[in-house]
Amino acid sequence: MDAVQKANSGHPGTPMALAPLGYTLWQNFLNYDPQDPNWPNRDRFVLSVGHASMLLYSLLFLSGVKGSITLEDIRNFRQLKYKTPGHPENHVAPGIETTTGPLGQGFANSVGMAIAERYLEQKFNRPDFELFRHNVYAIGGDGCMMEGVTSEAASLAGHLKLSNLCWFYDNNQITIDGNTKITFTEDVALRFKAYGWSVLHVDDANDINKINRCIETFQKTVGMPTLIIVDSHIGWGSSKQDKSAAHGEPLGEEVIKATKKFYGWPENEKFLVPNGVRENFTEKLGSRGQKLNRAWKELYSAYKENHPGLTRELELIEKRELPEGWDKDLPEFKADPKALPTRESSGLVMNAIAENISWFIGGSADLAVSAKTTLKFEGAGSFEPGQYDGRNLHFGIREHAMGAVTNGINLSKVRAYGSTFLIFSDYQKPAVRLAALMEIPNIFIYTHDSIGLGEDGPTHQPIEQLAGLRAIPGLIVLRPADANEVVESWKIIMRLQHQPAALALSRQGTPTLDRTKYHSAKGAAHGAYVIAGDPEIIPDVILMATGSEVALTLEAYEILKSEGIKVRVVSMPSLEIFEKQSQSYRDKVLPPGVLARISVEASTTLGWQKYTGLKGRNIGLTTFGASAPLKDLYEHFGLTPSKIAQAARDLIK
Amino acid sequence: MDAVQKANSGHPGTPMALAPLGYTLWQNFLNYDPQDPNWPNRDRFVLSVGHASMLLYSLLFLSGVKGSITLEDIRNFRQLKYKTPGHPENHVAPGIETTTGPLGQGFANSVGMAIAERYLEQKFNRPDFELFRHNVYAIGGDGCMMEGVTSEAASLAGHLKLSNLCWFYDNNQITIDGNTKITFTEDVALRFKAYGWSVLHVDDANDINKINRCIETFQKTVGMPTLIIVDSHIGWGSSKQDKSAAHGEPLGEEVIKATKKFYGWPENEKFLVPNGVRENFTEKLGSRGQKLNRAWKELYSAYKENHPGLTRELELIEKRELPEGWDKDLPEFKADPKALPTRESSGLVMNAIAENISWFIGGSADLAVSAKTTLKFEGAGSFEPGQYDGRNLHFGIREHAMGAVTNGINLSKVRAYGSTFLIFSDYQKPAVRLAALMEIPNIFIYTHDSIGLGEDGPTHQPIEQLAGLRAIPGLIVLRPADANEVVESWKIIMRLQHQPAALALSRQGTPTLDRTKYHSAKGAAHGAYVIAGDPEIIPDVILMATGSEVALTLEAYEILKSEGIKVRVVSMPSLEIFEKQSQSYRDKVLPPGVLARISVEASTTLGWQKYTGLKGRNIGLTTFGASAPLKDLYEHFGLTPSKIAQAARDLIK
Repeated sequence: MDAVQKANSGHPGTPMALAPLGYTLWQNFLNYDPQDPNWPNRDRFVLSVGHASMLLYSLLFLSGVKGSITLEDIRNFRQLKYKTPGHPENHVAPGIETTTGPLGQGFANSVGMAIAERYLEQKFNRPDFELFRHNVYAIGGDGCMMEGVTSEAASLAGHLKLSNLCWFYDNNQITIDGNTKITFTEDVALRFKAYGWSVLHVDDANDINKINRCIETFQKTVGMPTLIIVDSHIGWGSSKQDKSAAHGEPLGEEVIKATKKFYGWPENEKFLVPNGVRENFTEKLGSRGQKLNRAWKELYSAYKENHPGLTRELELIEKRELPEGWDKDLPEFKADPKALPTRESSGLVMNAIAENISWFIGGSADLAVSAKTTLKFEGAGSFEPGQYDGRNLHFGIREHAMGAVTNGINLSKVRAYGSTFLIFSDYQKPAVRLAALMEIPNIFIYTHDSIGLGEDGPTHQPIEQLAGLRAIPGLIVLRPADANEVVESWKIIMRLQHQPAALALSRQGTPTLDRTKYHSAKGAAHGAYVIAGDPEIIPDVILMATGSEVALTLEAYEILKSEGIKVRVVSMPSLEIFEKQSQSYRDKVLPPGVLARISVEASTTLGWQKYTGLKGRNIGLTTFGASAPLKDLYEHFGLTPSKIAQAARDLIK
Repeated sequence: MDAVQKANSGHPGTPMALAPLGYTLWQNFLNYDPQDPNWPNRDRFVLSVGHASMLLYSLLFLSGVKGSITLEDIRNFRQLKYKTPGHPENHVAPGIETTTGPLGQGFANSVGMAIAERYLEQKFNRPDFELFRHNVYAIGGDGCMMEGVTSEAASLAGHLKLSNLCWFYDNNQITIDGNTKITFTEDVALRFKAYGWSVLHVDDANDINKINRCIETFQKTVGMPTLIIVDSHIGWGSSKQDKSAAHGEPLGEEVIKATKKFYGWPENEKFLVPNGVRENFTEKLGSRGQKLNRAWKELYSAYKENHPGLTRELELIEKRELPEGWDKDLPEFKADPKALPTRESSGLVMNAIAENISWFIGGSADLAVSAKTTLKFEGAGSFEPGQYDGRNLHFGIREHAMGAVTNGINLSKVRAYGSTFLIFSDYQKPAVRLAALMEIPNIFIYTHDSIGLGEDGPTHQPIEQLAGLRAIPGLIVLRPADANEVVESWKIIMRLQHQPAALALSRQGTPTLDRTKYHSAKGAAHGAYVIAGDPEIIPDVILMATGSEVALTLEAYEILKSEGIKVRVVSMPSLEIFEKQSQSYRDKVLPPGVLARISVEASTTLGWQKYTGLKGRNIGLTTFGASAPLKDLYEHFGLTPSKIAQAARDLIK
């Protein structure tokens, strides 16, 4: 109440309603060592109701989590440079397991964490060495329950029988616009039973005994995740109790005083932490966690002796590092005019990598067959109930949950990817954005990356998606031109530790370029490079292209070259990587004096003007696509070597 | 089978499995006049499994829908310039009620159509004049069932007790990656019961009697929507029956022959339509529909005499036109340095418009209070079960469904809007895109449109959303600078007939600009206009800005002007509208000779280089925001008049 009041902004009502739940869970159940918040086998606590951030900040402060929230941070809730932003952000303070606020995301992340736990358990536990066995707890509210991403994630969790997962549903009957009766009257318990969950009920959020009993029941439940519905009173004890007004604004000084009185609390004290409270947390949560962690560390030492190889893997996982030789089987593709879709070459590359990194797992939203992302080597297997060491996840036609679940897996440091068509990046956009904001190396594989997918038509042809993804701060977008650029792209991706990547791949074939004729694909490591034309000669005109349009552009290059025009082609698989290069490198690739510049991409032209300027040309689309064979489409939309060549001639005449 | 084979691409299995269902529904139940596919009281048929487009094309062809699919179109399935794209598109041929393919969207659209029906019924029906009373049927599959947008829409439909809505779930147990057992094992029937639906079951998709009985039961059911689960066999009768291979690729000539044999069909005939088949459709569906339509037209004539005012409204609705005087109450805002958020002025403007257009309805995803989009005038009311003439819809925290449901409402020509925060446009992106592709005038209202929302922090601060929306072909994005630009924006929006709009509004206050000092807001009608500086004088430097940053930029203008610099400020509320202006107008606003150009927008800078070129500057963000009071944020991110002025000086020195 005090923090929200002082910030004059925030959400007091839910932290007040859920304090008993937070207290009970942390004090009596959470296996967590505040002195070592990164202990790999800790239980995870996810606050899916991110707006109730003060609940989490309070718990982190009272538990004395090392390096985390201080009272000073709480006094400066929602101010620049403090660890207490409006909604919790994972990289801001230890103990914040994920970034939440956009509703439903935390719930879906928690499914990913539960998957990671099951995977780690199956992969690393050995007889007498139970290294991994932890639970994932998440709290969500009416908003989380209404969001589609939650439905997708809950259905998946039920299917996977994740009995290490426990959700609390804060059933307070209140949303911003009023009582939930105006729009949310479904039977949540029945819905979760339909998903295959165990459903429990606490009819009074202040009843600590009932909360205790329900969590105990969860811990004993096998073969299914658990939902505990907790009937609560938003803004409990205040005159705004059970009202929307308690949700998202300060209560007001007078209301706070009266509420403190009701709680039996000194009315005029602010930010009061009575003696003994923090000590109480240390005695229960702290000492339990420390004991468990110590025992675990001893176990780990013995494990290290018995299983040095596995231990080495665990160390790498924790540091988000790659094993030696991870790239030893990377293929080099021979020049081949025969068209090979980049989704195909990517599938080969991924498999070559995955076989050497045992904690690299992932799956598809029911498009593994089309996206070519199945891990096919021996022992890869499927991740299914009771078979949690499988490396191929089946997300179903649930793109949004796939994005948020793979975020959760990556938060637990198992490296995960998910694949779908580029058009369906739209379905999972909120999760892609959060991956970038959370600084986690999730890998979003997007095939069928342009109108080149052909007959499926405009509903399936991405136009604005690349631009939209490139606009996300921190996300590395890659669109390789051929099989060897695919290899370079995967090298970039695998080395990322704190940034997610989006890899755009073609459905259609594109030739494997002859690198004796054109410059080496190694240049792709710089994001953009001169692929054709002498890099030492200032050209008359620069043609820049990405992905499947590079081959087309090289055909235009040959035409122009034959006409005696000094032309350069720049392949630009990743604008973000290119922007990280030195000014001198960038000026070398795109000499500032050359204003005759043309971009070629079978996608919206928006964004390319950054490189082509006011005088350049942008060849691409400004409308939706159409349903037809791809050759007809490229002709129809003017994406042909002759059109590109003509634009170049027009520009330099 | 033949069409997919000839196109060498497409989805044969589901049309084969569902032919009996399509036949039964259309022949025996659908109230539809093929000679008048736009008859307002027609039943709606939505194919949410858009990939099964051949089912719909077959039905449209066999029914002889006027101006719709011909056999020639079917022979040219998935070819340029024919009416048979890979997935059905509403504007391509009469009888295609909505554009589907991205899964779940059609189901959610159908909820909007059912809402529109209820609204029209309540608003226009009078004693003895039942003008509206029709049903909405939709077919979806496993994909639709797994997508979150379906869950959101189904929960809403159950809440609203839309008994005019009937969904068929094509339960074929097969998805692209294999059997649904690998990922989808929830109890769908139980889940829909939890949403408050009536659930029926047809255990054999070929059992026409059972299908008949279930549809009859639906028609008698009151107080809830109906889900009919139809167990089917994908690729029925072929050797690929019940296999993924029947889903998304041609069956192959040999398989087709064998299947035709199994069907008792001439093996070697292609595109065969036996004599009597089309006649049979005309006799049953056609004559029923024609009779109903004729009776309706008679009723309508009498209604016209008795209720001329209401009839006039109906005529306008059908033509997507506005009533005379719709804009008579539009406010004009007086200059006021006191800050007024554009969400506030927009709320006033919307109400002034809505009171004069009775078919303008909408709501919010639980942010009506924050977005200021509640219609407050007398009689506006809430749209709730049994109270279907209310004009305020409560979508709950279901942004995606809101987008798709308002698409459905607009498809039935009731003009609908939905509001949420700009950041949550991400949650509904697939529906926004489809609104543009479908060429319908949905209105997406997005408040809290920049880091200016302050303390809620980066999870809630849009950065890349404006760029992403501007990249959607056909969508009109507007970001007005002050209350009077809000008025102009709404004028643009309301006049749109075939394009959706996204309106970005500020949480924070921005002054109502003094238009005696600066140029009139009427210029906003051109998308961009010179707001400050003599339009006849070529300036030294151009500052362009949108929304809440225009006021900041005008402060920079005053500083620069006082230093004797010839400076022009261009307010650019809509880049899309600006792009539609003549080259001479655009050159007048942005003289090509002036290369000292600066853009100012509290958002990603991506895209602005189109106007600022290689030599200009872009003031905005390239990172995520932060949680703090807005003044601290604008200072922190360099969005201040002095920084803007300094950039201008740097550029022209």
